[in-house]
Amino acid sequence: MRLIGKEEVENIAIGAALLGTGGGGDPYIGKMMALQAIEEFGPIKLLDITELEDDDVIVPSAMMGAPTVMVEKIPSGEEALVSFQELEKVLQKKIKATMPIEAGGVNSLLPLALAASIGLPVVDGDGMGRAFPELQMVTFYLNDVSTTPMVLADEKGNSMVLNTVNGVWAEKIARSATMVMGGSVMNAIYPMTGKQVKDSSVYRTLTLEEKIGRIIKEAKANKQNPIHAVLDLLGGYQLFTGKITDIDRRTDGGFVRGTATIEGLGEDKGQHCYLEFQNENLLARTDSQVLCMTPDLITMLDTETALPITTEGLRYGARGTVIGIPSDEKWRTQRGIEVAGPRYFGYEHDFTPVEELQKGEGINDEIPFGN
Amino acid sequence: MRLIGKEEVENIAIGAALLGTGGGGDPYIGKMMALQAIEEFGPIKLLDITELEDDDVIVPSAMMGAPTVMVEKIPSGEEALVSFQELEKVLQKKIKATMPIEAGGVNSLLPLALAASIGLPVVDGDGMGRAFPELQMVTFYLNDVSTTPMVLADEKGNSMVLNTVNGVWAEKIARSATMVMGGSVMNAIYPMTGKQVKDSSVYRTLTLEEKIGRIIKEAKANKQNPIHAVLDLLGGYQLFTGKITDIDRRTDGGFVRGTATIEGLGEDKGQHCYLEFQNENLLARTDSQVLCMTPDLITMLDTETALPITTEGLRYGARGTVIGIPSDEKWRTQRGIEVAGPRYFGYEHDFTPVEELQKGEGINDEIPFGN
Repeated sequence: MRLIGKEEVENIAIGAALLGTGGGGDPYIGKMMALQAIEEFGPIKLLDITELEDDDVIVPSAMMGAPTVMVEKIPSGEEALVSFQELEKVLQKKIKATMPIEAGGVNSLLPLALAASIGLPVVDGDGMGRAFPELQMVTFYLNDVSTTPMVLADEKGNSMVLNTVNGVWAEKIARSATMVMGGSVMNAIYPMTGKQVKDSSVYRTLTLEEKIGRIIKEAKANKQNPIHAVLDLLGGYQLFTGKITDIDRRTDGGFVRGTATIEGLGEDKGQHCYLEFQNENLLARTDSQVLCMTPDLITMLDTETALPITTEGLRYGARGTVIGIPSDEKWRTQRGIEVAGPRYFGYEHDFTPVEELQKGEGINDEIPFGN
Repeated sequence: MRLIGKEEVENIAIGAALLGTGGGGDPYIGKMMALQAIEEFGPIKLLDITELEDDDVIVPSAMMGAPTVMVEKIPSGEEALVSFQELEKVLQKKIKATMPIEAGGVNSLLPLALAASIGLPVVDGDGMGRAFPELQMVTFYLNDVSTTPMVLADEKGNSMVLNTVNGVWAEKIARSATMVMGGSVMNAIYPMTGKQVKDSSVYRTLTLEEKIGRIIKEAKANKQNPIHAVLDLLGGYQLFTGKITDIDRRTDGGFVRGTATIEGLGEDKGQHCYLEFQNENLLARTDSQVLCMTPDLITMLDTETALPITTEGLRYGARGTVIGIPSDEKWRTQRGIEVAGPRYFGYEHDFTPVEELQKGEGINDEIPFGN
C-alpha cells in the first residue's frame, strides 16, 4: 500500500491518456475531479493486487459513453457514489476497494476521485492495460468474470441495475440506456472477488501510468527526447511522424468513429498515415502497409510536447508522432483477439503483433478497409 | 374474493380487447397462457380492491413493447416470474397480489397467467380502465405513485431494475431497453401499498371485462344486436360503420403508429372515417368532424361478430363499427388530460367528451391533423 497525492495524479493523467490510445475521454475532467477530491479528503490508498484477500469484494468504477458528450456533461461525482451504493445493496456485501476498468483518460482518474471522496482504496491494476470501446473488452471477460450485476447511474438521479446472460448483452442494453440517459453515465461493473482480480487483471497499471507521466516530464526537463524515453520504457515503436490534414469523425451508435489522415514529415515525407478509431485508435496504416493494429496500442503524441492527443483532440494542422506499443499478453491469446482483434472491428486482417510488423515483415494492405 | 376459471377467462379476453381500444396486444396469446396456467394449477383468486389491507404489497405485471413484435415472440411466463422475484429482492418484501396495469388484450390476461402459476391472487382493477401506449399513462401516476423500482425481464434471461426520478424517465429508459432486448419484455412495475391501490386504481375492471364478453355472447345466442348490448352496458356511442379501405401502419420508436381509413356503409354511406392510433386508437374523425378522442375509448368491432379488432388486426376490406365510450373520470381531470389527452399525442384539439361530441355539438375539424 502506498499513498497517491496530487503530483502522482498529475503524472497518472498523462500516462493514462497515453495508454488510452486516443480514447477513454479527456483526462482533464477526471484529473480535476481527482485533484479536488484529494484536496478535500486527503491522499488515496493504492493497493497492490498481491495485497488483496481472496474474498475481498472489488468493484471497478467507470464512465460509459461517447467522450465527446462527456466533455459537455461533466459528472458530479454523485453518480459514481450512487452506483456503488446500489450495487452494495444488490450484492448485500461491503465493497472493499475500487479500480479502473481501463487505462484511459477519464476512466483511470474517476475511480481515484470516487476513492478519495468515500475513503475507499484503489487497486493498482485495470481490465485492459489500454482503453477499448465496449464493456466486454476487458481481461475480466476473457476470464469469464460476469459483467453483471452492474449499476448505471446518471446525473439526474436515474439508476439501473442490470443482470444479463453475458457481457455482450450487458454492452447492448447498457449502451442503449446510456444514450437515452444523456450520452454518458457512471457504472459500477464487473464486481469481483480478490481472487478474480488476481487471476484476471492487468497488473500495476496506475504505477505504469505514473511512470510514463514522470518520464515525459523528466526527459523534457533534461532536454532529452521524451518520445524516445517513453518508447524505451514501454518497448514501443515510432510508427509515423507528420501533420494532420484531414479528420472524418462522426458520433454513431454511442461511439465516436472516424479516420485521421496524417501527411508525413521528416523521414516520412511523401507518405500518408491513416489512423482509424472507434473512441480509441484501432489501426494505423499507410497507403501500402499496416503499421499497427488492435489489440496493440496506437497513440498519437504531440511532436512538440510529447503529450498524448485523444481522438476528440485531433485537430487539422496538429503535428504528431504515432507510436505503437505491444498489448498485454492476455490480449494476444486467441480469445483476446476474438474479443478485441482487428476482425471484431471489421478490418479484414489477422492480428499481427506490432514488433513483427515493424521488423519490415509487415503485411501489405491490398484489401480495402471498412469499419 | 371469488374464483376465476376458464369460462371467465374466455369472457375477460373479449372484454379486455374491447376496452383495449385496439391496443394491448393480441388477446389470444395472453388468453392461451392464462387458460394453460389454470389447467395446470387451478382457478385464480380474484380480490376486490375493498378487500385489500392498507399495507399489502401489490405489484402490477405487464408486457411492454410493440404488440406486433409480441405476436412473433411469445413470452414463456418465466420472464414475469423473474421480474417478480427480482422486485421482491429490491423491496425486501413479499408481494401479496398482482393486478393488470391496463385493460388490454395481453395485459389483462398475462397477470392472470402469472397469478395462476405462482398461486398469487389478482386484484380486480387496473391503472387505466382502457389501454394506453406509455408507462406513465396510468391512474397510479396521476396520483403520484412512483413508477419505479421496476424490473424488466426478457425471455433470454436478461433483467434490469430501474430507479428513475419520474415516470417519464422510466418510460424513456425502459422503452429503449425493451427495443434492444428484442422488442418486448415483461415488467414488474408501480409497486404499491393496498392503500395506494385503493386511492388510485380504476375499480373492477376484470369484472367489467367479463361482463362485456358474456353480454356479447348472450346477445348473439338470443339473436339480439351485440353491439347495442355493449353500448347499453358501457354508456357508449356508435360512431361510424363501414369498410376499411386503407391502412397506413409503421413501427416507430417502439410503437405501432398509423391511420386506418373506413368508407361508410348504411347510414354512413358517402362518408369516410379516419381512425388514428399509436398502439391504441386515439382519435376518430370524419372529413369534417371529430367523433371521439383520447382519453375516451375508441374501439372498432367486427360488424358481423361484434368482436373487437386490434390495431394490428386491421385488414383491408374488413367491415367494422367504430364505437366511443366515456373514459374513467380520473382521465377527464386536468392532470389526466395533460398526461393522455389529445394534445399530448400531437392533435391540435382540446379534449371534448364523447357525449358532447355526439350531441351534435361536435367540433369542426378545420385544423390539419399531425401525429
